[in-house]
Amino acid sequence: VFHVTWDAASAEKGGYEHFMIKEIHEQPKAIKDTMTSRLMPGVDEIKLDDIKLTKGDLENINKIYIVACGTAYHAGMVGKYVIERLAKVPVEVDVASEFRYRNPLINKNTLMIVISQSGETADTLAALRLGKENGARVIAVTNVVGSSVAREATDVLYTWAGPEIAVASTKAYVTQLIAMYIIALYLGRLNGNVSDEEFRLIRDEMLKLPEKAEHLLEQKETIQKFAAMHYVHKDMFYIGRGLDFAVALEGALKIKEISYIHAEAYAAGELKHGPIALIDKGVPVIALATQDELFEKMLSNIKEVVARGAHVISFAFEGNDDISKVSDAVVYLPKTLSILAPVLSVIPLQLLAYYTAVERGCDVDKPRNLAKSVTVE
Amino acid sequence: VFHVTWDAASAEKGGYEHFMIKEIHEQPKAIKDTMTSRLMPGVDEIKLDDIKLTKGDLENINKIYIVACGTAYHAGMVGKYVIERLAKVPVEVDVASEFRYRNPLINKNTLMIVISQSGETADTLAALRLGKENGARVIAVTNVVGSSVAREATDVLYTWAGPEIAVASTKAYVTQLIAMYIIALYLGRLNGNVSDEEFRLIRDEMLKLPEKAEHLLEQKETIQKFAAMHYVHKDMFYIGRGLDFAVALEGALKIKEISYIHAEAYAAGELKHGPIALIDKGVPVIALATQDELFEKMLSNIKEVVARGAHVISFAFEGNDDISKVSDAVVYLPKTLSILAPVLSVIPLQLLAYYTAVERGCDVDKPRNLAKSVTVE
Repeated sequence: VFHVTWDAASAEKGGYEHFMIKEIHEQPKAIKDTMTSRLMPGVDEIKLDDIKLTKGDLENINKIYIVACGTAYHAGMVGKYVIERLAKVPVEVDVASEFRYRNPLINKNTLMIVISQSGETADTLAALRLGKENGARVIAVTNVVGSSVAREATDVLYTWAGPEIAVASTKAYVTQLIAMYIIALYLGRLNGNVSDEEFRLIRDEMLKLPEKAEHLLEQKETIQKFAAMHYVHKDMFYIGRGLDFAVALEGALKIKEISYIHAEAYAAGELKHGPIALIDKGVPVIALATQDELFEKMLSNIKEVVARGAHVISFAFEGNDDISKVSDAVVYLPKTLSILAPVLSVIPLQLLAYYTAVERGCDVDKPRNLAKSVTVE
Repeated sequence: VFHVTWDAASAEKGGYEHFMIKEIHEQPKAIKDTMTSRLMPGVDEIKLDDIKLTKGDLENINKIYIVACGTAYHAGMVGKYVIERLAKVPVEVDVASEFRYRNPLINKNTLMIVISQSGETADTLAALRLGKENGARVIAVTNVVGSSVAREATDVLYTWAGPEIAVASTKAYVTQLIAMYIIALYLGRLNGNVSDEEFRLIRDEMLKLPEKAEHLLEQKETIQKFAAMHYVHKDMFYIGRGLDFAVALEGALKIKEISYIHAEAYAAGELKHGPIALIDKGVPVIALATQDELFEKMLSNIKEVVARGAHVISFAFEGNDDISKVSDAVVYLPKTLSILAPVLSVIPLQLLAYYTAVERGCDVDKPRNLAKSVTVE
């Protein structure tokens, strides 16, 4: 006779040591599930059964506000970029706790998109209500069916990440990104700014993302090694330009949340206007260089921090070997369109946060001072 | 016979130990000079000889972009808030190095405001050119007569800060703020959104700012004491809401630039969405609470960080004594309108950066890695 010791929590973790690393690995499936039935091979339209916005409605919209908090706000920054690029409608993205108190110019020609994993974030819900009171149409992007923002919004686009247990959001964030692309393509098709050709190109690349994310998860040695070497540092800097800057903000937040390292993200072009004073010998710098047209500029920015003694880990697409000459370590991402890069580049940043926190012996799934959803103001 | 030893540099410093502290003390005069002939007691209009924008021109403008780098970008954030509030025209503020590469939606109905102390900032100048190529009207706000941005813009509004020698900008920043108020009032009068009554109220309060700034400079003991106690820290956090957040960003940049402390500013409502994980025993937190309608919210945010062991110095208007119960130290500002608070609240933050850098033995006027004007990309 032998005894089986069985622990409910570790069983739910499916063999992983923490919920966070389990959820990081669930991202290929979460991305796929969020695209399912909306984006289909060979179909030249986005199918959004939940959203009743017509071509006529869109013609009257002259401004989109994306409002969210924390990680969801970072997804909103990507949303601004892709909606302006694909649908050519001006977008402003704002932190919910700021938005509600600054008398934003909202009226019936305003479309609001609120993003909240739980659908219960207090400031985001208050922002939604403010928008509706002023006549705006509101699309909610949320992971929880029947949540408050889902019930109160005009339309809902669910992310299908499944339950997220770790306090630091990972799979919910990537599905929020997918939701942003879907909305941008939907609006761009509706108002004629996305051609058949462009639609097909982006759709086909999006459908390959789950497989590429899977591939990326298999090569974590570079990340583990960098984490093991640099986990002792108290400060780190994340730099990027354009979409890479939005991802840098999310990467820095992740490592802040779970490893308590003071990481800060900067638009790389702003370094010279102040923050480069902080770059000294041995400071870890995490550099994102996935945007084709900004690649050379990023190489220059990396050289600037290297000249001051920084230790640099870079993230670039396969084939951009030049970056290895100016970096201590490089993680190569499977090639996709620059506009889709955030979905892939955030994954190694999540892993970097995770392995760093593990090295530091932190309580990864339940970081100090933080709650999973912030339902008070 | 006795010898007089005479040193050109110290003579230029007019008895001050550094250019920076001299320039901090020149702010009352810089504010006054920038208002002179534009904002006059008893005169119910803004006089702007340099700007030829007519009422008809403004009717066609549906979007304002403010584009700048570093400290000037922080002045732009205040500009967005006050222009939207007073003139009710939507404003987007962007970092020049990001703006130029993200295909912003610019056309002949766009007004651009570029801000650059030197008028030679490479990315800002490139953004100005991009705007003009796309048909935008561009107003330059600069401190240098005949500089590149002054020559190439449609209209110019000079700040009259006088020559700024210290690398870390102080008096140029406050005059940029004054320029933002002047533009906001000018546009708001032109399109009828600022009533006679409101104009007079703001004008009269603005005219009192030099005297209030002078008064504030006289009471630096609290700041010196906080600097002497906390200069050893490697990390600090600046928090605020609304206009206070914009000033918090500038305060954090100032201390980064000259004392190499990793200071980071947060919209106080975002603390719970991640960064509060970094607040531990003894971490210095600089809290701005000058916005009347957000005062109670800020008190709650301060309590949150105090509960985690932070040492808090707060900045609030005279009369808000409640804040002393939740703060280790308080600097009281002479009362003015909430909307004008940035002009006063930034002064003690500049002093905090200065005294901290002096305590740390840093080269205040010439911080490592930084140049006065960034004329390369």
